[in-house]
Amino acid sequence: MKTPGSAAKSAGHRPLIQAIGLLESCFREKFGTPRQPQIAPAARAKLKIFSKFSPHHSLKGLEGFSHAWLLTYLHLNTQKMFRPSVHPPRLGGKAVGVFASRSPHRPSPIGLSLVKIEKIAGDTIYFSGTDLVDGTPILDVKPYIPWYDRAKRALGGWAENTPPRSLTVGFAPEALRQIERLESSARPRLKTALGQILRQDPRNPRDRSQLKPDKTHEMRIWDLEVRFLVRGRRAVIESVHPAGPKDYLRPGRVPPEIL
Amino acid sequence: MKTPGSAAKSAGHRPLIQAIGLLESCFREKFGTPRQPQIAPAARAKLKIFSKFSPHHSLKGLEGFSHAWLLTYLHLNTQKMFRPSVHPPRLGGKAVGVFASRSPHRPSPIGLSLVKIEKIAGDTIYFSGTDLVDGTPILDVKPYIPWYDRAKRALGGWAENTPPRSLTVGFAPEALRQIERLESSARPRLKTALGQILRQDPRNPRDRSQLKPDKTHEMRIWDLEVRFLVRGRRAVIESVHPAGPKDYLRPGRVPPEIL
Repeated sequence: MKTPGSAAKSAGHRPLIQAIGLLESCFREKFGTPRQPQIAPAARAKLKIFSKFSPHHSLKGLEGFSHAWLLTYLHLNTQKMFRPSVHPPRLGGKAVGVFASRSPHRPSPIGLSLVKIEKIAGDTIYFSGTDLVDGTPILDVKPYIPWYDRAKRALGGWAENTPPRSLTVGFAPEALRQIERLESSARPRLKTALGQILRQDPRNPRDRSQLKPDKTHEMRIWDLEVRFLVRGRRAVIESVHPAGPKDYLRPGRVPPEIL
Repeated sequence: MKTPGSAAKSAGHRPLIQAIGLLESCFREKFGTPRQPQIAPAARAKLKIFSKFSPHHSLKGLEGFSHAWLLTYLHLNTQKMFRPSVHPPRLGGKAVGVFASRSPHRPSPIGLSLVKIEKIAGDTIYFSGTDLVDGTPILDVKPYIPWYDRAKRALGGWAENTPPRSLTVGFAPEALRQIERLESSARPRLKTALGQILRQDPRNPRDRSQLKPDKTHEMRIWDLEVRFLVRGRRAVIESVHPAGPKDYLRPGRVPPEIL
């Protein structure tokens, strides 16, 4: 008896879709991960292409492009039933159709992210401006080709305007000292990244418990735990310190069929 | 015993990916289908969303957007083995890596097309500027959101420049008479569409038999068969007439798992 996976991979049958690698990202869980790419240009991620996809040949020529599309498998999507309507955070409760949104809860849970290529070294592509959680399976990398990926005179519907940068961001003196100590080549531009991430207000406006004024929020970035408060329209980062191993890596379930 | 398809669709399991509809396109076979969207703005296609995806709710709000991304399952891709290098037509023989190209031959055969939304009526979206063959399974529709789908200061690598509009296009008197008779609401802007399609030179520069100077080429658009010649850098459309039923609809195999 063959399992569905082995059947799909046997000679003559191509798998339906395949991960070409798993993204290594500074974001370790959904909370705090930007809702869209380019919000946090200081966010970093890298993708090592699986050797079976011959990265030394299959990446050739990508270095001439400044940006790429990542097609991702949205494996943290735990929704079991299809829901035709979604509530984008910026609409504060108003519903739109899932096909008029970029919600991860879709019949085919495939994400599309425009990211900047920082460099390519051997089998690994380094990106910035990412909005993806660590461990996200990448289905495809496509170069961004300006003349046909750019729509002329485009209308952006309900998302026409850039989202409000809703929070100002401050740092408690202790947090500043910790950041100075922790910023390194493994965690580059830490302070800048935290500012960019919190400015977008990572709280879910539909979750009242998150909106309580004196709640301490916890967020993971790289191997760090960040604690912050929000008062009015101001976020204050209170502390930044190494997280315990139990505190991060909830990678979700990557479907075995795509590996 | 459950088949892989029924297992994937049973309660609690989400299918890996699903078609939300099959595109109805004016292009009936690969030859003549533009290599990229927006090359032939007169090209038309429509997508009826399957009723299980509640189009009356799931499309709500899409009418405010001028453009959309179509994520497509490239079902005409018959390549059995992964090949890391591809030969884009405009590079005339030079190879680049598959991840530095938009070739349909990819580990996850998912296409990304930027198309213009002409109108939405009930469960059906009407598009123009498409580059997809009739019957292509559509995995997802996402709105094009200008502020985060547009890269600033983007470099387009080997595809930096717009492709040359390599052919001028003429019409034989007989073809002009036929087009005048056949242009209708079912085949709108037929003459314009043919000009846009042939201008890009649909011949494969790596296929010598296609490049023979007096070869008559046949191409299908809507229910028509178009015959043309290419002499030097000039294409001449010789005739346009209704195609016999055997002449078109080679829809390829849509994987049953996604239906």
